[in-house]
Amino acid sequence: MTRPIDLDPAWLPDEALRGVGTRRVLVLGDGPLVDTVRHEVAYARAQFGGEQGYDDGSSCELLLRIADSGGADGGGENRGGEGGEGGDAGREGFTLERDGTRTTVTATAPAGLLYGFFHVVRLGATAFLAAPPQTHRPALALRMLNHWDNVAVHPVMGQVERGYAGGSLFWRDGRARGDLPRVRAYARLLAACGINAVGVNNVNVHETEAHLLSDRIDEVAAIAAELRAYGIRTHLSVSFAAPVLLGGLGTADPLDSGVRAWWEEAAANVYRHIPDFGGFVVKADSEGQPGPFAYGRSHADGANLLADALAPHGGTVHWRAFVYDHRQDWRDRSTDRARAAYDHFAPLDGEFRDNAVLQVKHGPMDFQVREPVSPVIGALPRTRVAVEVQATQEYTGQQRHVCALAPLWSEVLRFRPDGDHGPNVGSLVRGGGLVAVSNAGHDPFWTGHPLAQLNLYAFGRLAWQPDADPDELLDEWVELTYTPDRTADPERLRSGLRAVLRDSWATYEKYTAPLGVGFMVQPGHHYGPSVDGYEYSPWGTYHFADRDGIGVDRSLATGTGYAAQYAKPWSETYETPETCPDDVLLFFHHVPYGHLLHSGKTVIQHIYDTHFEGVEEVEAARRTWASLADLVAPARHTRVTERYEEQLRGAREWRDQVNSYFLRKSGVPDAGGRRIH
Amino acid sequence: MTRPIDLDPAWLPDEALRGVGTRRVLVLGDGPLVDTVRHEVAYARAQFGGEQGYDDGSSCELLLRIADSGGADGGGENRGGEGGEGGDAGREGFTLERDGTRTTVTATAPAGLLYGFFHVVRLGATAFLAAPPQTHRPALALRMLNHWDNVAVHPVMGQVERGYAGGSLFWRDGRARGDLPRVRAYARLLAACGINAVGVNNVNVHETEAHLLSDRIDEVAAIAAELRAYGIRTHLSVSFAAPVLLGGLGTADPLDSGVRAWWEEAAANVYRHIPDFGGFVVKADSEGQPGPFAYGRSHADGANLLADALAPHGGTVHWRAFVYDHRQDWRDRSTDRARAAYDHFAPLDGEFRDNAVLQVKHGPMDFQVREPVSPVIGALPRTRVAVEVQATQEYTGQQRHVCALAPLWSEVLRFRPDGDHGPNVGSLVRGGGLVAVSNAGHDPFWTGHPLAQLNLYAFGRLAWQPDADPDELLDEWVELTYTPDRTADPERLRSGLRAVLRDSWATYEKYTAPLGVGFMVQPGHHYGPSVDGYEYSPWGTYHFADRDGIGVDRSLATGTGYAAQYAKPWSETYETPETCPDDVLLFFHHVPYGHLLHSGKTVIQHIYDTHFEGVEEVEAARRTWASLADLVAPARHTRVTERYEEQLRGAREWRDQVNSYFLRKSGVPDAGGRRIH
Repeated sequence: MTRPIDLDPAWLPDEALRGVGTRRVLVLGDGPLVDTVRHEVAYARAQFGGEQGYDDGSSCELLLRIADSGGADGGGENRGGEGGEGGDAGREGFTLERDGTRTTVTATAPAGLLYGFFHVVRLGATAFLAAPPQTHRPALALRMLNHWDNVAVHPVMGQVERGYAGGSLFWRDGRARGDLPRVRAYARLLAACGINAVGVNNVNVHETEAHLLSDRIDEVAAIAAELRAYGIRTHLSVSFAAPVLLGGLGTADPLDSGVRAWWEEAAANVYRHIPDFGGFVVKADSEGQPGPFAYGRSHADGANLLADALAPHGGTVHWRAFVYDHRQDWRDRSTDRARAAYDHFAPLDGEFRDNAVLQVKHGPMDFQVREPVSPVIGALPRTRVAVEVQATQEYTGQQRHVCALAPLWSEVLRFRPDGDHGPNVGSLVRGGGLVAVSNAGHDPFWTGHPLAQLNLYAFGRLAWQPDADPDELLDEWVELTYTPDRTADPERLRSGLRAVLRDSWATYEKYTAPLGVGFMVQPGHHYGPSVDGYEYSPWGTYHFADRDGIGVDRSLATGTGYAAQYAKPWSETYETPETCPDDVLLFFHHVPYGHLLHSGKTVIQHIYDTHFEGVEEVEAARRTWASLADLVAPARHTRVTERYEEQLRGAREWRDQVNSYFLRKSGVPDAGGRRIH
Repeated sequence: MTRPIDLDPAWLPDEALRGVGTRRVLVLGDGPLVDTVRHEVAYARAQFGGEQGYDDGSSCELLLRIADSGGADGGGENRGGEGGEGGDAGREGFTLERDGTRTTVTATAPAGLLYGFFHVVRLGATAFLAAPPQTHRPALALRMLNHWDNVAVHPVMGQVERGYAGGSLFWRDGRARGDLPRVRAYARLLAACGINAVGVNNVNVHETEAHLLSDRIDEVAAIAAELRAYGIRTHLSVSFAAPVLLGGLGTADPLDSGVRAWWEEAAANVYRHIPDFGGFVVKADSEGQPGPFAYGRSHADGANLLADALAPHGGTVHWRAFVYDHRQDWRDRSTDRARAAYDHFAPLDGEFRDNAVLQVKHGPMDFQVREPVSPVIGALPRTRVAVEVQATQEYTGQQRHVCALAPLWSEVLRFRPDGDHGPNVGSLVRGGGLVAVSNAGHDPFWTGHPLAQLNLYAFGRLAWQPDADPDELLDEWVELTYTPDRTADPERLRSGLRAVLRDSWATYEKYTAPLGVGFMVQPGHHYGPSVDGYEYSPWGTYHFADRDGIGVDRSLATGTGYAAQYAKPWSETYETPETCPDDVLLFFHHVPYGHLLHSGKTVIQHIYDTHFEGVEEVEAARRTWASLADLVAPARHTRVTERYEEQLRGAREWRDQVNSYFLRKSGVPDAGGRRIH
């Protein structure tokens, strides 16, 4: 519980423990996770001088207890939502009772007690006011982070692929980092926002990393021990070619009996070291990673191979759906990367094992600031589907720009693939879960940009409760992280933080790629604008801007047909420029610069206006942040101030390059007469 | 003399030594370089069974001798050209006498004898036919290669900055490579084409490389010993900040007495290890390298500091003129990188020491396939100026494309800065010399692409004789390297090699950046097209293409004024689109796509046509090369064949991206109705 020196407390500053630490608390129950709760209580008491409750609990103010276990393990079966009354809370749920004198957290299992404890922390003083009883349980059983951390520093991608928060928490220069106290501190933060699974290495599994599965499993086990203390199961990204790479077999064919036996033994070996191991994460036949296609087998064959090996031990395989041709010819407008995941996976519905989860990126492309929701999510009703989002801000400012992503993720989770009367994505992924690529690293602020901590926190909370309001999660995070009530001007701090964060995604969208067109970034590192950066590349990411117009025709009638991968009403909505929402217009249609948006503006004027507005909003946010200097810890304030300098420089660069590009190409002057270069 | 196994013999195959090796040869004279000649003769004899001449020379067929020294060392003073009759041949010259029975090479110094020997090799059987006596001497005293080789592998630039021929000949992974036989074999090749100076490390001097000057001078000395055996002096790139970096001084101010004393001792120390050390090469105040500007001093102050330290030992400082703002704002069209070298250095004429050479890139930008000749070259009549060219093909196909550069260099050397009646560049650099960035590395073919050997060879020959005809140098190289007479079809081989090489520069120009506009390359590595790759960058390399036209206005009347840096008539010629030569039109002017070239074509049609033609020419060259399979050694033929595959792929990519870019932007259809994407 003791934090390593110089490490930012994020959303668990000691101050957040005041409510617990100043009261008489009793913890009843047994097992390692109950002990974790007990240690948390002891730590809080040490900070604030609270008293331990009596053994009989008669005078305690907070009682945390394991109830007699009446129900089955509710984890995987849990269909409940947040805030329901009574009923089975499941293995991870808990019931909160408050009579004004005593607050009682009752869980049927230790994990629930831990989450109940952190719920009390989150409520602060409110936890001790009288209120009707509530049962809380996670809507999604699987709330996972994937770390794209390399063990050996990759010559191009570095220690962490798409990492913007220093080195890896787990690995350094080819070895386990060995900073286990920090791993435990990380686990504590994750548990406090509801995350219960972590993949500890990059889905791109290179030579060195492949060995984590076999002769280096000890290093994974050491990390797993720390994560386990906070109820988090460890997952490992593995190479589909492992039987060849590690086992010396001549094939990795998923139907080969030798291969099957090899994986069975590999899985058994992992469980000998990590009894509660979560399972494998696999990127196969994707961007150069090996996969079942090499053997003429389907991705169901591939996933089931690993699922079968894990099944006896209770593990799950997460099979990523990010399969597309990354050696596309830009001259060929009939091939559409956006179509690829659906084309590959929709026909396989029903063929996957029960312990296989298809992990689907939230959009059809790759974590752009704006994409339509992937049609794959609703297309496999007989398959466990997880949605993958990206907390690490690869395309959203790389933690040098403020971009609070919960509103984006919330839009995805609320999207209804079958229209208003069908289930939303948040419901559809109950069986599979929600996964984020982690934005945390060895940086003392965890996430490089201190305000990017919000994304990690809000991800966990949304995974627990997909219909949570992003604005409320922001407020929740502000209260925990900045403890406004302990400052000289709580309301100024609250409103300032809200102002710089709440609409920051919209701001980022404004000054970058317009109207859903995506990918106007510098190739390779993906930071900063390059309007034509991917226009003539093999990566399948084009905008086709010419002097007359811009956008990709993905209609069924005249384009690539991607729009038809959606069910109605979306297939119809997206099919024509007239019905297509403005914010994804250029994703679905190639239109003239003079095309009139639903907003009443032309496309070209929208581009100019949003790019000027975006920069103005960054300037305003920077001023707001500066005005909070007296209310925020100096180190944190300084770090954010520095990042705002870079964000403003970057936003201006985006504005000027994008506007200049389109003025030069379209010849249409800005109606506002502003300076474009 | 014995070649390391598996190393391509380049232009010194044993077969080229047949003329010497089958005859009776006598070598008269003393000293290490005479011994080198003697060893060469012995090696040739060992291959072909020729006899040693009698001591009195009465019956020998080839006599190589040092004459009684009558003249002074002619090196630095040499004003002679190739092929003159009689007179002083200088330290590096020689006289060739052929009476049909005996051929006699007479030199006043050992270096001349070595060059005379290789001249005889070059002549082959012709060397033994009767002819009038001829005296040969180098037009330029300094014929230098700069290796941009790093000692430690640079995280971005690698072992060799802009190297396309494997690792470095000199360094590997932070240490001297220690492959001294290969260094000697390299020196032999260089001597055979007339090169007499080599800079052994990158002009970008990083931390590790800085130490070559001080505690690692032994490693340089070991290389120098090998180069010395073939008459080549070793040069070292040094950091201007060395007194701070290595000496621990608080300043590197060139007028500081402590700094001056430090450099004097540093130079003295170098000469204790390398008595014939050539001098320093310095990139200062350029692309992040330190320089005198930091102390408010001029570049003359900086250069003279090092010149004074070297003077007592006979060394020379090569001070690079590549000084410009590489953090330019692309929005600011008044700043012009092309102007920078002239603006910085022209005012300093007359202020440099006699042993300081100002090393100027041949064009004002950076080794583009087409640039005007730098106005700096003619602007400093009281300064020793060297012209720097780039044998390594950074912007000309990176030794994956065939691009024979001697025609480009020859155009530069024949350019007359003051018009028809003034001296040409070849004459203007007599005091300074010619420098090439080497294209050689640890590749078994020396230069990656076997046909790129021609660039190294032709560079040396042009430095010796700047008015040499590039076509004749090509033929010379073909005879030496491919010994056509020893093949089944000499004329097919000769005409095939001529066909694929002679116009390859023009071909490369056709399919890449048009009309002198330059820099439409991928940022960073500079390989392959990216029309807007540098358009919004800080590097000062723009084309300003919009829907109406393209090009940079560098006129005095309406542009950056760069054209006025030239003397008449060029300042007038370049000032208007009407008088400006087509091939640099877009370098000097922004014109509409419909602008009519002197060729009679519009700019846009020229772009389309040349790009289609360029690819067709590569296709033809590839077929021609394929037809030579029976006449070329298999390993060499295979390597070139592989490179042609890549060249063709690359040329098509250039064609399609450039044409698509301009069609999309201009909207002007191709008059030929060809497919543009």
